[in-house]
Formats: sequence, structure tokens, C-alpha cells
Amino acid sequence: MTVSPERTLSSDLSTSTPAPTREEIFASHEGGKLATGLSTPLRDARDLAIAYTPGVAEVSRAIAAEPALARRYTWTDRLVAVVSDGTAVLGLGDIGPRASLPVMEGKSALFKTFGGLDSIPLVLDTTNVDEIVETLVRLRPSFGAVNLEDVAAPRCFELERRLVEALDCPVMHDDQHGTAIVLLAALQGACATTGRALSSLRIVVSGAGAAGVACARILVAAGARDVVVLDSRGVIDAARGGIKAELAAETNPRGVTGGPADALRGADVFVGLSSATLPEEVLATMAPDPFVFALSNPDPEVHPEIAARYAAVVATGRSDFPNQINNVLAFPGVFRGALDVGARRITESMKLAAANAIFSVATDDLAADRIVPSPFDPRVAPEVAAAVAEAARQDPAAGVTEGDR
Amino acid sequence: MTVSPERTLSSDLSTSTPAPTREEIFASHEGGKLATGLSTPLRDARDLAIAYTPGVAEVSRAIAAEPALARRYTWTDRLVAVVSDGTAVLGLGDIGPRASLPVMEGKSALFKTFGGLDSIPLVLDTTNVDEIVETLVRLRPSFGAVNLEDVAAPRCFELERRLVEALDCPVMHDDQHGTAIVLLAALQGACATTGRALSSLRIVVSGAGAAGVACARILVAAGARDVVVLDSRGVIDAARGGIKAELAAETNPRGVTGGPADALRGADVFVGLSSATLPEEVLATMAPDPFVFALSNPDPEVHPEIAARYAAVVATGRSDFPNQINNVLAFPGVFRGALDVGARRITESMKLAAANAIFSVATDDLAADRIVPSPFDPRVAPEVAAAVAEAARQDPAAGVTEGDR
Repeated sequence: MTVSPERTLSSDLSTSTPAPTREEIFASHEGGKLATGLSTPLRDARDLAIAYTPGVAEVSRAIAAEPALARRYTWTDRLVAVVSDGTAVLGLGDIGPRASLPVMEGKSALFKTFGGLDSIPLVLDTTNVDEIVETLVRLRPSFGAVNLEDVAAPRCFELERRLVEALDCPVMHDDQHGTAIVLLAALQGACATTGRALSSLRIVVSGAGAAGVACARILVAAGARDVVVLDSRGVIDAARGGIKAELAAETNPRGVTGGPADALRGADVFVGLSSATLPEEVLATMAPDPFVFALSNPDPEVHPEIAARYAAVVATGRSDFPNQINNVLAFPGVFRGALDVGARRITESMKLAAANAIFSVATDDLAADRIVPSPFDPRVAPEVAAAVAEAARQDPAAGVTEGDR
Repeated sequence: MTVSPERTLSSDLSTSTPAPTREEIFASHEGGKLATGLSTPLRDARDLAIAYTPGVAEVSRAIAAEPALARRYTWTDRLVAVVSDGTAVLGLGDIGPRASLPVMEGKSALFKTFGGLDSIPLVLDTTNVDEIVETLVRLRPSFGAVNLEDVAAPRCFELERRLVEALDCPVMHDDQHGTAIVLLAALQGACATTGRALSSLRIVVSGAGAAGVACARILVAAGARDVVVLDSRGVIDAARGGIKAELAAETNPRGVTGGPADALRGADVFVGLSSATLPEEVLATMAPDPFVFALSNPDPEVHPEIAARYAAVVATGRSDFPNQINNVLAFPGVFRGALDVGARRITESMKLAAANAIFSVATDDLAADRIVPSPFDPRVAPEVAAAVAEAARQDPAAGVTEGDR
């Protein structure tokens, strides 16, 4: 018995207003969702003489003499490039750069709304890692940070690693680390509301794509001692190649073998990050009162109502159920904090600090159906930004230059 | 005798307010001059569900099925990439991409203010033509048009040609064609106010850089019959290489040889587009009541007050003297018109139409010191856009698809 007949969810547990209609959605996207604006209006010849010739020449001359002044006198210091090749867009897969653009514009809108950061979508008509790296290296003077988005695994791992090496500015693949940060915060919330410790939990991560790999790693970094990762071929072990071999070395301390049923028997936490269904009879074999995070969008691995029959805490990726694991809790504050202090890298300690900050906002009003704050809680982004900035200052790997800020 | 002792101009003919101070200029550039904004605010979970997941998936899916819908449902349809490698920035020369960014932000601000177009500066850390073309081809789905800016000659000619070939969207090097369009409009204005015909004039273009080449060509295209081009080696003839050989074939019908003095003796029009000084004794040998367009910035080739002793019409590139030949009269309307009709090219007929539109706005109030409209005349950009759009519809080379608009 699986929940597949229920894959089109009715959100009985929902707190939502009626879903937007197709007409409403298209009308709202007409002309795109972004615009550029001016920090000061140009009303007359004098404004023009300041913002453009001849005045601007003074500013250009100053930057030519002292390149670091570009941070102060251009918009790049708060500008995030939202970069995608359109190969893994939402649940739609490889739909190409042009069709990915509405998503990237949406991401830019979130950066502005939640992080106060300017942002430009750059969608690339190539999926070649060398070419994407080369393109962004050439454009380096045009932006202050790179948010990688919707790039297919396993290419995303190499691409992120190469960009971090090649660019002297913050780079983060949000589908990996944004998800991982919020998942960790949510798990901390679930532990706190049930009086359990992260280090005592048996955790199964289902899915070894971008999000699965990053989630497994941040959990280990945060102190989880028993993480088992599954992909379509079963439990990941050292016989695999590439990043999965690395992952095998960091996880599965008990040497579990087999498939989902083997991994989940007696487990305390299910983290679903693939579209693989979680059958109810497998769910029933987990340890008592487990946490079930069924994060696939739009269709969770198990219907939250069924999960709730067994689980102490249920979370999804959807806004119309409680406990939405939503990246927007993380990325605006992470980039804001990194840019605020002029960090050159987004390090592990900065990601952990971001998760702690999200968790700490949630603790004010914690409950089994409120393990994370609302995305619209105005405290989240500033708290995350402050925590990330402080962690960057403390972490030499972040590359914050003395006196930079 | 030259005017060099007066190279620091006092603007006795000026109509300007006091020049902005250095402090004022830097304060105004603090944090940069651009920002991104949202066409619709994100106030609650419902807004988020429309602009981002799950709603945006509908829009992405529609574009994946029909790529032309990207024009309708993304911002690219009104988005100009302002592209520079920083090799010929204002009068500052090769100061590099980072230092050129304040100028490109200023350009973007002008696009918004005068053309109602969004615009992002893309400054490139390479001066290699192949690499710049390759970079923009990869980024093609991210924008709707390319304004090339401040790229050094002669590389700018090849770069523009290659980009026009490689990209299916409007591309224009503004330092060439923006200047040429406004110069032509100004010359039409000078002819009208003095009762002369363009075809009857002996015209000398001093300077064979980006602007000089484009100005000579548009004048010939508009009906000028006697254009002689000078560079630092004298009159350009067929013995030169590259673009100058092409230019020699299109100009100098009387086979003039020698230097500035030879070219200017008996000439009706001086168009100064290099920093080479125009000595008063040479000016004195021109035909009676010439037009003197001393367009170098910030120091005109001859002080406008000295020019006025001889000339019927004097123009400069400066805002603090009458008759400012300012590109902002052209490029916002040119790109706006091209994007409004979905043109794939900016053709010669579209440029001529732009010049005619600027001239026709000027005719309402024409005088020897008002041969072009003010940049703040609100009629200019809409008239230019309408004329360019109409010319594009009529010109198969513009590539407007039937029913595109």
C-alpha cells in the first residue's frame, strides 16, 4: 500500500487561502517581475552632470586608482547574480535557460523583498561547466555574489566547487545549501519541541541529488552521528563513484545495506528529497514518534495526513501545510550577511550560524506544527544576516579583510 | 596661434548652474546609482505562491512549450544589457571594467529615465573580441538588446559587426551610432536655420575613431556628397588598411590630400571628434559662415567663443554651452523603438529615422543656438521611438516578424 492514489493532494491540514488561478498567475507575470530603478532621480541637467558626464569621470578615476572603491561607489556590493542553466528547474527538470527565467526573476524578487539585496538573473545557454565558469569569471566585475540555482546534479557539485575556486566573492548553490540550512534549523526545532538531541537520532536522507548531499553533510557537521543516505539504487556505500563515494565515507556508520525498507527500519527521521514515495508500511517500521520531513514539491513523498498518524513532527516543502521547509528562510540573510562584511566565501560555519539563527527565531513560539518561523516573520533575514556576518568575521576561511567593514 | 592656453574653459556662453562639487558627486554615487525592484510587491504567502513556487511553474512550462512567450512573461523584452570592457571610457581611456562601471550604471539610469527601459551593466574582464562575443552568446536568453559602450577603436568595429551577426537581437555601439544620429540631426538643424542643403556642403570630419567613422558614414547615407575624414596621419585615403580603407572608398570625392589645413580650406563644416586642436588660423580659411561642431569632451577642439567669431553655427559636446550634441537624444528612443516592435537589427534606415525625428522636434523652435532639442524635452524619446519602430516595420533587414507586434 502506497499513498500514490493521493498524489494530487487535498490540503486538509491547510491554513491557506484559495489557490491562485492560472489566469491570475499569467496576468501577474506579464512583462516579467523585475525592473531596474534609480537610487536618485535625474530631473535636470545638473543631475545629469553628476550621475553621468562630466561628474561620473571623477568616480571612475578614483576606482581606477583604487579598485576596492568599486564596492563603495557601484551597486555590485549588494548585487547578487542569480545564475542558472535551466537544467533542473523546480520539479520541471531540464527546460532550458529561457523557460527558467521566470523562476530566476522570482528568486531575484525574493532577494529584494526578504534581504534588501539587488539581484539580476543571468541564464546561460550552455550546460558546460568550463564554459559557465569562464563566463562568470569574465563577468566578475559586474556583480558582488553568485546564487547558483536549478543546476542539475551531479554537475552542480563540480560547478559550485569550480566557481568557489575561481571567483573571489560569495558563491552558493541554493538548492544545496539553502535547503540544508533550513532543514537543519527545522530539525533543531523538532528536537527542541520533543526534547530530543540531534546526536541521538538515526536519520535517513532519501535522495542524493543537490539537496540530499548538502543536507546529509550539514547534519553531520552539526553533530548528527547516524545519517544514512539513499538514492534510487539503495543505501549509498563506498562502492559508488564521485561525490557519492565521498558521501559514503561521511555517513552510514553502522554499515546499513539494502533499500529504503532496510534503512528506515527503526529510524527516527525521514528526510525526503526525491520523488520516491514513502510507503505507509515502511513508515510504520520507523522508531516510535519519528520526524517525517517529506520535502518533495509539489507532491510530498507521503501525504502529511498519513505521516501524522505515526510521526511526532511532520514537515513539507509546501506553503499550504504547516512546517514549510522553505529556502527563503535562509538565502536572503545568508547573502546579505556575507556581503555586509565583504566575505569572499560562504563557509560551513556561516551556514551553521544561519541555521542556528533561524532556529533561535522559531524558539519564541515553538510547537510541533511551528518548528520553523514563517517566511514573512520580519526577524528572520536580519537575524540570519547578523549571525552569518559574525560567523564570517570569526572564520578565516571566509576571507573577510581586516577593516573591510 | 592655437587656443591651447584656453583649454580650461570658462563657459562665458554658458547657461549653466554652478558645477557640482567633488563632494557632491561622490556622495551621489555612494552605493551605486542602480537598484532592482519588483513590478508587484510580495506581501503574503499568496503573492509568493503566484510569483514563485508553485505558480511560476505554469509560466516556465508555457515558455518551455513556446519559447517566444519569454518576450511576454519575462523582463527581457524591455531589458538592455549595457556592455563594456572599459577600454575607452569617456576621455579617460583604458581604465578597465571595474572603473567603467559607474559610467555604465549612469547609462542604465539614462535608459530608464529617458526610454523607460530596464537595463543592466555587464562589464567584462576581457578585451578579446572572440571572448566577448562568446560570453554574450551564452547570456543571450538573459536580455533583449545590447548597448555596447566605451570599447576602444578599431576593435569596436569588429566587435559590433560580430555581435550583430551572432545575436538575434538589437545591438548598437552607442559611441558610434548614437553620436552619428545626433550629429546628423544637428546638421539638419544647422542647415534649416541657415537655409542650406546638406548635399551642397563640404564637410570635414576630424577623427576616425568610433564616432568619426560612424558620423562620416551616416552623413554620406543621408545625402552628403563631400565628406573628408582626417586622423592623426592626415586625410584618409585608399592607401590605409582595414576600416579606414573602406571609409576612403566612401568619402573624399575630390581626392584631397595632406593634413587638416588642406582639408579645411574652403570647407563648410568642421566636425571635431578627436582631441586635435583646431587652430584659429585654420578656422579662418574655412568657407564663409561655416558650421563648427567641436565635440571633444571635456575640451572642445576650439573654444566656442573663438569659433563664434567665424561660424554661423557652433555646437559642442558640453551641457554648459548651447547646442549640446548629446547621445541621450538618440539611444533611449532608438532601443525603445527597436524593442517595441521586436526588431532583430538596428538598421541604417532606423538610424536615419531617429535623426529625422530629433530634427523634427527641434524645428518647432529652431535657431542658430537651438539646432537640437534639450535632452529634457519630453517629446524626444517617444518621437524617436515611434520613428524607429515605423522604420523597422518598413525595413526587411530589421527582422520584424509579421504579427510580432
